[in-house]
Amino acid sequence: MSFDDLTTRLRDFADARDWEHFHTPKNLVMALSGEVGELTALFQWLTPEESAKAMDDPELKEKVLDEVADVAIYLTRLVDVLGVDLIEACHAKIDRNDRRFPARTEAP
Amino acid sequence: MSFDDLTTRLRDFADARDWEHFHTPKNLVMALSGEVGELTALFQWLTPEESAKAMDDPELKEKVLDEVADVAIYLTRLVDVLGVDLIEACHAKIDRNDRRFPARTEAP
Amino acid sequence: MSFDDLTTRLRDFADARDWEHFHTPKNLVMALSGEVGELTALFQWLTPEESAKAMDDPELKEKVLDEVADVAIYLTRLVDVLGVDLIEACHAKIDRNDRRFPARTEAP
Amino acid sequence: MSFDDLTTRLRDFADARDWEHFHTPKNLVMALSGEVGELTALFQWLTPEESAKAMDDPELKEKVLDEVADVAIYLTRLVDVLGVDLIEACHAKIDRNDRRFPARTEAP
Repeated sequence: MSFDDLTTRLRDFADARDWEHFHTPKNLVMALSGEVGELTALFQWLTPEESAKAMDDPELKEKVLDEVADVAIYLTRLVDVLGVDLIEACHAKIDRNDRRFPARTEAP
Repeated sequence: MSFDDLTTRLRDFADARDWEHFHTPKNLVMALSGEVGELTALFQWLTPEESAKAMDDPELKEKVLDEVADVAIYLTRLVDVLGVDLIEACHAKIDRNDRRFPARTEAP
Repeated sequence: MSFDDLTTRLRDFADARDWEHFHTPKNLVMALSGEVGELTALFQWLTPEESAKAMDDPELKEKVLDEVADVAIYLTRLVDVLGVDLIEACHAKIDRNDRRFPARTEAP
Repeated sequence: MSFDDLTTRLRDFADARDWEHFHTPKNLVMALSGEVGELTALFQWLTPEESAKAMDDPELKEKVLDEVADVAIYLTRLVDVLGVDLIEACHAKIDRNDRRFPARTEAP
């Protein structure tokens, strides 16, 4: 399944529940932010080294999967209601970053 | 271009700059959270109605494109270092949400 | 009770539980961010007008009190471990804002 | 100067600029969240150990002072428009935490 399928599924999900009037960009940005807060809470007391092994803990793994999904779901809804092609926007941003932060390996 | 291409491009980008040691899950969650904060700031004083027309303002549109890309970039890096299949995690979460919030249209 | 009493009480609370080694600035910023996420979630689907009446709903009021307290608690711990005088930092910042955004009433 | 003085000063500041109609709880929560995002960005690539020495770096210190002030300013405005006594709410919350997480030193 692709990112486009996900977008369509989430649009249908909101539509079938009459949630579209809640899904203004302002509200969706807040929902995205709330979910990122929940994701942050899972990592707040871990050292960076412990965080790198987070998925080895089955209970924590389940929570992380749940929260990254929630973050992605609201981000997907947000860009859908904004009419943004997210993958294209990312590549355009990476192109700009490429110019801002030239890679060492591109040095003569 | 697909989500998988984006993942690979971002991994190569970090690798070419020796940034991988910065990219622990803990740090990437913070970076994601910081970018969501910048996105939030773009919408904080708008009414929900104004937020729905955000992309009609060329200057604001450019900033929104920039920030949603940054959010997606750090989310993509995060799930890559965690070894999570994000699209699959989203569909699994929507399956659970489907059971939690049955659609009106599924009523008898 | 004052802000200084709160700082001392929270320091003693952390000390009595041997939590001080968790309370690095990095971790406390994440904890603060996580709590702001929970606060955000309480307001995400409300209109601005509904949000202005949030405290009229006893159940929501209790949650809001809980979350603003959590935000303030982690902010207080953070500035304590950083050695920042928060009230002074606020007044210094408002002084700068005063120059950046002159009040209409100060117009000739 | 006290927390109460800060509340009054910020209320007057918003009033003198006719900003009060922007300062709904929903908008202020977003502004708070945006500022916490900026604070988070200052610490995202630091190790916990480096974060503990953040104030030794004069340039970083200035940014941290600026961001913790912004966070406190929006939190202060938020609780003012909500009619919440923040210091009291904090002590009530710590009372509840005291019961949830008994201190080792209080053991018989």
